[in-house]
Amino acid sequence: MSAPHDQGSSSLSLEALTQLLETIFLRHGTSSEVARVLAANCAGAERDGAHSHGVFRMPGYVSTLQSGWVNGHAVPQVEDVAPGFVRVDAGNGFAQPALAAARPLLMEKARHAGIAVLAIRNSHHFAALWPDVEPFADEGLVALSVVNSMTCVVPHGADRPLFGTNPIAFAAPRANAAPIVFDLATSAIAHGDVQIAARKGEKLPAGMGVDSLGQPTQDPKAILEGGALLPFGGHKGSALSMMVELLAAALTGGNFSFEFDWSNHPGAKTPWTGQLLIVIDPDKAAGQSFAQRSEELVRQMHGVGLKRLPGDRRHLQRSRSMAQGIALDEQTLRQLREMAGESIAQA
Amino acid sequence: MSAPHDQGSSSLSLEALTQLLETIFLRHGTSSEVARVLAANCAGAERDGAHSHGVFRMPGYVSTLQSGWVNGHAVPQVEDVAPGFVRVDAGNGFAQPALAAARPLLMEKARHAGIAVLAIRNSHHFAALWPDVEPFADEGLVALSVVNSMTCVVPHGADRPLFGTNPIAFAAPRANAAPIVFDLATSAIAHGDVQIAARKGEKLPAGMGVDSLGQPTQDPKAILEGGALLPFGGHKGSALSMMVELLAAALTGGNFSFEFDWSNHPGAKTPWTGQLLIVIDPDKAAGQSFAQRSEELVRQMHGVGLKRLPGDRRHLQRSRSMAQGIALDEQTLRQLREMAGESIAQA
Repeated sequence: MSAPHDQGSSSLSLEALTQLLETIFLRHGTSSEVARVLAANCAGAERDGAHSHGVFRMPGYVSTLQSGWVNGHAVPQVEDVAPGFVRVDAGNGFAQPALAAARPLLMEKARHAGIAVLAIRNSHHFAALWPDVEPFADEGLVALSVVNSMTCVVPHGADRPLFGTNPIAFAAPRANAAPIVFDLATSAIAHGDVQIAARKGEKLPAGMGVDSLGQPTQDPKAILEGGALLPFGGHKGSALSMMVELLAAALTGGNFSFEFDWSNHPGAKTPWTGQLLIVIDPDKAAGQSFAQRSEELVRQMHGVGLKRLPGDRRHLQRSRSMAQGIALDEQTLRQLREMAGESIAQA
Repeated sequence: MSAPHDQGSSSLSLEALTQLLETIFLRHGTSSEVARVLAANCAGAERDGAHSHGVFRMPGYVSTLQSGWVNGHAVPQVEDVAPGFVRVDAGNGFAQPALAAARPLLMEKARHAGIAVLAIRNSHHFAALWPDVEPFADEGLVALSVVNSMTCVVPHGADRPLFGTNPIAFAAPRANAAPIVFDLATSAIAHGDVQIAARKGEKLPAGMGVDSLGQPTQDPKAILEGGALLPFGGHKGSALSMMVELLAAALTGGNFSFEFDWSNHPGAKTPWTGQLLIVIDPDKAAGQSFAQRSEELVRQMHGVGLKRLPGDRRHLQRSRSMAQGIALDEQTLRQLREMAGESIAQA
């Protein structure tokens, strides 16, 4: 690694951080392609200030690879099923390389048919979902994605967990500005944020989860140790979470969030499920250009007093990171360098 | 009308109710096709106990038609845009006849391409959304629909309303059982339910809306008279509502919820916007049949203590209505017969 920084500095360029993460992935048993895709994904989240899906995830990636739970060398098998339907068998590997492998075909189909769907199965998704949709909007397309995860959410009206945190991400192009992008867990709180709160010893807001006895709790550790999360927005969030199970698992041929058993793989952290992406070409729509219309919606949203769009904070942090480097505390940087097998005598 | 009931009875067969509603539509200026589609839709909602979108809506349909705001004789123009993309110009008519006109082509495309999208614009949607998706699941397809409506929801973080109640509906086939179907407003409460509460003089739960000064209120009348609704689930429901504006308006060429002006049409109640439907053929998916998989998910949901699926209550009420007739109170029935121009001397 050759970060253009003083020893002891806690600021890295995007390139330097990506290279460091790539080294970690390679060292723990991934192909160079998998290392490249995952490192770019994780460094991008850190760059954007999306800390719960940034380098915070690296120990989980490493322990999962070490456990033999995921195939770091998997080569995704892309299947051209129909004019608007692409399938990928991720081969028990990560979802992001599967998406990368299918992306050109998916985009070609979306532009030709006006809409196309990508069904990824037999895959592990351990990252934020917005990086999967945002690049389509950068190309002028509208994208929607859902991924199911692992049993930790109690369906509304039930008394034990079944669903995953099951996020929904959406991206749409916007004239003369960064795309409109959001990524929301259908749980009341993202699992990564519970982990971060537990690490910091912070209490959670009410209504986020239950303890191992099914009783409401604001203690993140009680949620992580035998407890469970609640869906956001009561029965509505719960219905959306159910939809994510159906789209990401039933419609892809992947596992439901409750169907995999990693008990023989201590250290495994990545849910072995499926992911669905729908990509639409807005140039097929009637009327004024979509990007002009989405810009008009944003203008009106600001007009009624909205200060910040979903994604604005990320884009602001991205600009800062690109100008000033990505800030990492010394302990985190040391840990990353250890995982990369670098000498830390100088640190 | 020839309901097989005693005078004074408040129970009608589905056929009799449909015929009564059809007469009302025809009498107030729709084509026979529009009357047929809307009557079946509205009677079906009443049959299923979905009262806020049942005959409760008829006065609104009638006053809208009388106001000249909507074209009851519009003939939808179906455009075959691409292998997976169908557009319809509803011609300032209702959305349901536009969907009915495009449905065969949409289904053919979905089965061939694996996925297809229907973009309806220049349309008025005044009904529940689940009747638009459920029939696709009856045919073995997965369907998702969104429709925007009229400014009455304050985006999370803003201080004045902009979005509509913007519902999302989803339907998926299930082996040996009625499809899995949900229909949820992205507002904290559906507009129809606020109207019903106002009519009954009931208070709303907290967190549903604000009064004309933007202050929280539980008074449905304060919400209807210059106030506004809140999105469900805070910033997440708000993001989904924004997505509905983008998909149902920007992607169809329809109006955003804030773009139409009906001030010159007193009595107009129907939002003049757009609607998007996405239909997927699950037979293109890998692995076990989708309907078997969705049945497995339902089985597991019951296994964790869920008593009732979204849609269960509707299907139960549907069975009851088909066996015993659709119960209507005398006042409602009298009002419907008046709208239909029937003599009520005998009642």
